[in-house]
Amino acid sequence: MNDLGTQIRNGDRRALAKAVTLLESTLDTDAPMANDLLRAISGKKGRSIRVGVCGSPGVGKSSFIDVLGMEIIKSAHKVAVLAVDPTSPISGGSILGDKTRMEKLSLSDSAFIRPSPGGGVPGGVTANTHEVILLLEYAGFDYIILETIGIGQSETDVANLVDTLIYLHQPESGDDLQAIKKGILEVSDYFVVTKADGNLQNSAEYAAQHLRSALSDPHDSSERVFCVSSTEKIGFEKIQAVLSEKMSDQTSIARKRELQKKQLFESRLTNDFKALLTANSRFRDRIESLGKRIKSGKSLREESGEFFSEFLK
Amino acid sequence: MNDLGTQIRNGDRRALAKAVTLLESTLDTDAPMANDLLRAISGKKGRSIRVGVCGSPGVGKSSFIDVLGMEIIKSAHKVAVLAVDPTSPISGGSILGDKTRMEKLSLSDSAFIRPSPGGGVPGGVTANTHEVILLLEYAGFDYIILETIGIGQSETDVANLVDTLIYLHQPESGDDLQAIKKGILEVSDYFVVTKADGNLQNSAEYAAQHLRSALSDPHDSSERVFCVSSTEKIGFEKIQAVLSEKMSDQTSIARKRELQKKQLFESRLTNDFKALLTANSRFRDRIESLGKRIKSGKSLREESGEFFSEFLK
Repeated sequence: MNDLGTQIRNGDRRALAKAVTLLESTLDTDAPMANDLLRAISGKKGRSIRVGVCGSPGVGKSSFIDVLGMEIIKSAHKVAVLAVDPTSPISGGSILGDKTRMEKLSLSDSAFIRPSPGGGVPGGVTANTHEVILLLEYAGFDYIILETIGIGQSETDVANLVDTLIYLHQPESGDDLQAIKKGILEVSDYFVVTKADGNLQNSAEYAAQHLRSALSDPHDSSERVFCVSSTEKIGFEKIQAVLSEKMSDQTSIARKRELQKKQLFESRLTNDFKALLTANSRFRDRIESLGKRIKSGKSLREESGEFFSEFLK
Repeated sequence: MNDLGTQIRNGDRRALAKAVTLLESTLDTDAPMANDLLRAISGKKGRSIRVGVCGSPGVGKSSFIDVLGMEIIKSAHKVAVLAVDPTSPISGGSILGDKTRMEKLSLSDSAFIRPSPGGGVPGGVTANTHEVILLLEYAGFDYIILETIGIGQSETDVANLVDTLIYLHQPESGDDLQAIKKGILEVSDYFVVTKADGNLQNSAEYAAQHLRSALSDPHDSSERVFCVSSTEKIGFEKIQAVLSEKMSDQTSIARKRELQKKQLFESRLTNDFKALLTANSRFRDRIESLGKRIKSGKSLREESGEFFSEFLK
């Protein structure tokens, strides 16, 4: 297994892809190898930044990441892109589809693009995504970009996996500011209005203004709202500068990651509990026999109470 | 406690509202009373239908429910509306806001409108929503409408709580058919294109046509796609007819609900497990001390394995 670790460290892409698959696997038979791998890669940490990119379908996440990623690579960094959400275009599409979506980035030797595991138990993806991030950092990627649809509960899950979160907003999307969920506003660090070119230029600037005043905090003069055009490649240097500055403060990043660990552990425990409900035969029996027992007029709430008092030490 | 049950049975609205609050409560001190209430209302089941209404923000869920609800009431039924999603307009708004949103329905004696619990742990809402539905049915409401944003994981949760699911689609929403998540297509029984009036009339019909061909199943000639105008009150009689027919087949409904129970129990167990991670002091200690233990290079995966082997019988 140290072999696999060494191969990855030496830049072997096939070994890396194989290792990601191993970490994403839910097969019991893969668990010992995954554990060995995790042990082999632990403790070797370099400078890195984990960036979440979320937004509604069609907002232009892939094009944004394609351009941003290429800019980052030009400054001598290595970029890995992970799709966290099972409905994400890069996970939904075929390999060919992915290549078309991130045209430039997918051809670069300094980039690694990974769709999320097919089928994707949403929670489970998150649990393993943390491990995949550690692996990618071990492999020498220092910009880890997580792409997610970011609607529903997923944005807080993603916020917990990244150092900084960028929310993409489309001008004239119907989807006005009221529609940006409160949760998203709270967890996002930066807001990027996409498609700021041609006909949409004015409405993009208007949307950005609107966002700025909605977010305005008199004590905070830092810029949090940007406009970009991915087709015209406009507006990316500012975003890159912001990320680069964040990355230079590894002390803050380490502190934040430390705080995230407890949350990650809790969601790991919850996901593993869910998996046990299927895998553990005593749990399974208990659930299967529910029909019989519930006829007595017991509520699911009571059934649950009894379940835990029976199975917990 | 039987008192509260009797009051509810006799149509006391304040008692009903109080009981819903009791069931939604997460306070340990409320648990015994909630259990008594659930026991008091168990076993008394009448004819009812549970209808999920989901769709993106701004699609017109509240207006749709307002008109549909009033039509249902005209045919001598009682309608209860629950907001399942914490981001839903009826939960986000104030009481006054709610009244404006469902203008007619909120004034009717045959309707009961309930926003989702504030703050709302998303999963937790679902767990208790099932109990609230049982309570509303006990109180004599026979059309239970669950309003939800229905994006993310929530639609499958909601699908599991209802007998039938209606997805609302807005014409020209940018949000084209590709953007309707596969999960939603799979779990929805009916698709309703809203705002089919004025300027949008043609695009609404086009969207409906598009949906029909996307869903076309040569073995299924039943109508699943409808156009409505809530402002013009057009198109509702067909939807009402479909629901009424579904409702008349209580055998099928009972069969479906039986199948849902296991899933509901599993999600109840998962939610209760999550709650235990906070409430159980030994679990808490284990999570709090993670920082110390993880330094040894152990992965969260291993930590989780040890957690379960330590605490499970």
